[in-house]
Amino acid sequence: MRNLITDVSGVRVGNAHDARAATGVTVAVFDQSVTASVATLGGAPGSRAVTLLEPEMTRAVIDAVVLSGGSLYGLDAAGGVSAVLCAEGRGATFGGITLPVAVQAILFDLMNGGEKAWLTQPVKRRPPYWDLGRDAALAAAVDFALGTVGAGYGGTTANLKGGLGSASQRTKQGFIVGALAAVNAVGSATIGEGPHFWAAPYEQGREFGGYGWPAKLTEPDLAIRFKGQPVGATATTIAMVATDASLTKSECKRLAVMANDGLARALRPIHAPNDGDTVFAVSTARADAALGPAGEPPALTEIGAAAADCLARAVARGVYEATALPFENALPDFRRRFGKTVRRSTPQ
Amino acid sequence: MRNLITDVSGVRVGNAHDARAATGVTVAVFDQSVTASVATLGGAPGSRAVTLLEPEMTRAVIDAVVLSGGSLYGLDAAGGVSAVLCAEGRGATFGGITLPVAVQAILFDLMNGGEKAWLTQPVKRRPPYWDLGRDAALAAAVDFALGTVGAGYGGTTANLKGGLGSASQRTKQGFIVGALAAVNAVGSATIGEGPHFWAAPYEQGREFGGYGWPAKLTEPDLAIRFKGQPVGATATTIAMVATDASLTKSECKRLAVMANDGLARALRPIHAPNDGDTVFAVSTARADAALGPAGEPPALTEIGAAAADCLARAVARGVYEATALPFENALPDFRRRFGKTVRRSTPQ
Repeated sequence: MRNLITDVSGVRVGNAHDARAATGVTVAVFDQSVTASVATLGGAPGSRAVTLLEPEMTRAVIDAVVLSGGSLYGLDAAGGVSAVLCAEGRGATFGGITLPVAVQAILFDLMNGGEKAWLTQPVKRRPPYWDLGRDAALAAAVDFALGTVGAGYGGTTANLKGGLGSASQRTKQGFIVGALAAVNAVGSATIGEGPHFWAAPYEQGREFGGYGWPAKLTEPDLAIRFKGQPVGATATTIAMVATDASLTKSECKRLAVMANDGLARALRPIHAPNDGDTVFAVSTARADAALGPAGEPPALTEIGAAAADCLARAVARGVYEATALPFENALPDFRRRFGKTVRRSTPQ
Repeated sequence: MRNLITDVSGVRVGNAHDARAATGVTVAVFDQSVTASVATLGGAPGSRAVTLLEPEMTRAVIDAVVLSGGSLYGLDAAGGVSAVLCAEGRGATFGGITLPVAVQAILFDLMNGGEKAWLTQPVKRRPPYWDLGRDAALAAAVDFALGTVGAGYGGTTANLKGGLGSASQRTKQGFIVGALAAVNAVGSATIGEGPHFWAAPYEQGREFGGYGWPAKLTEPDLAIRFKGQPVGATATTIAMVATDASLTKSECKRLAVMANDGLARALRPIHAPNDGDTVFAVSTARADAALGPAGEPPALTEIGAAAADCLARAVARGVYEATALPFENALPDFRRRFGKTVRRSTPQ
């Protein structure tokens, strides 16, 4: 186990970023088309090709999940991903035409200190996202980095640098569940001024430092803090969860809803009016189709609970592994903030 | 009155196409940001930035509606539109950053005889849609052509060339309602083998030839015919309706649902499993904000009924005004099919 979403058989992940613009793209591509759905609980989402993920829509399978920075400008990324998928002959074909499906959500990282050149010459200079989507798809592999990479490159939280996180676990039935999150939250992943993560109860090993829960929660610890007080600036945490259990599209929708509870446990606040929080859920069905490793049909409640835990852990790891952007007044990263007390996680 | 959606004050429309690829883009841009929503009743939609149009989402207003060919590859078009809007300083601003909202739906025109060069060299050659979106936005005006233009350039129906259509009318209360449709239907806009449109009951003047209703409907007239028998090929009719009445976002959602009934009356079948039929609804609120020309608050039922009629008429006009694509085996256009019997419509 890599403790990454790629522990789910059939999933590969690629990252690409533009350091000058301080933004990037993460893509999950699949060895075979996968069943998928989505649950958007943030109030200000930006997305591409997601209506087809609703259970009443016809298309049953997709070929890539794209997470990116750039807010609405970032929605070109799925175009670059689709080009790579088309070149590889992935996805459905109609009369000899290859038509892969790349679904996408974006986060708002336009005010993080990076130089967004296209905003000053918008018709002449294209946003970098189509190219970043292409490059991320070309880089897809089972091993990938966490922290200030891909869609997490430009992400921040209320008090610390955000980033890309991932985690995985095995259910009692033997199914593998994994999560991937690009953390750019309006709220905080940590409690008060300390190094304790809200996701601490779900931590496995020392994957985000092993700080555990604070001995005592004070009133200031519980004060609600968020970017852009008092009304809340545009933020967003975008994520996906995956399992090798064989689920229907409607079950994937339910999985996406339950996985959002992992965001609720790891970030405070979350799902706010100017958040675009979106969670995709994917079934690769690589475990035995009807019965899992333990000879039982998939228990969706158990898979959903595991997905929520994985997503909470992925959020904490994204913050824990991040490095600050090299700009004046950039938010500190977890390591800089808490110095020597940080113990690096090791692969499980 | 131009009998176009641009009769609704505050709406301009631009078209761009790629003749070799036989595809194009239509964009409606607004003098000021507009309240909007969407209703997607087709089973295989492709869309961009539409989740934010749901009534429970925060963003209240948008800056452009983009209709395009290209299926999922066409979803880059909103990027080019956004660049033009950004250059013009349109849309919301956050900390000095301009962030216009361009929502989009696509139709499937990949198998119409045009040369889709990007499908053979997908990573090296980009799809043309970002550029077409930019060009369509730059061309936006109150006058625009119908037929084989813009998003309707590559469209077809089961039996005739499809195209871009538009229509407008005034409600009893004095509000203006307009519709715009890119017709690429899985079904037919005409009845049986004759020149009679299903939308005939709603025709104003001779806007689509004045053929009226057949003297008699035969059993073959009522046979269900559609592209790609027996299962139905991927098709789609995408559209928008607009009014100068001041409506809330939830009322725009209701308007989009009612407007879909115009598609139901003008096309048979419609809203099928492999259709991506999507209708956007927009309120420019240019009539008096609280009360309309007759001194009454907007009657949503009347506006919705007018929008359905306008959309049915726009569909028929899109087919009536189309010219066939210059490819071997291309579907005939209405004029070629019915020859001298066709009487051209004149502006009202």
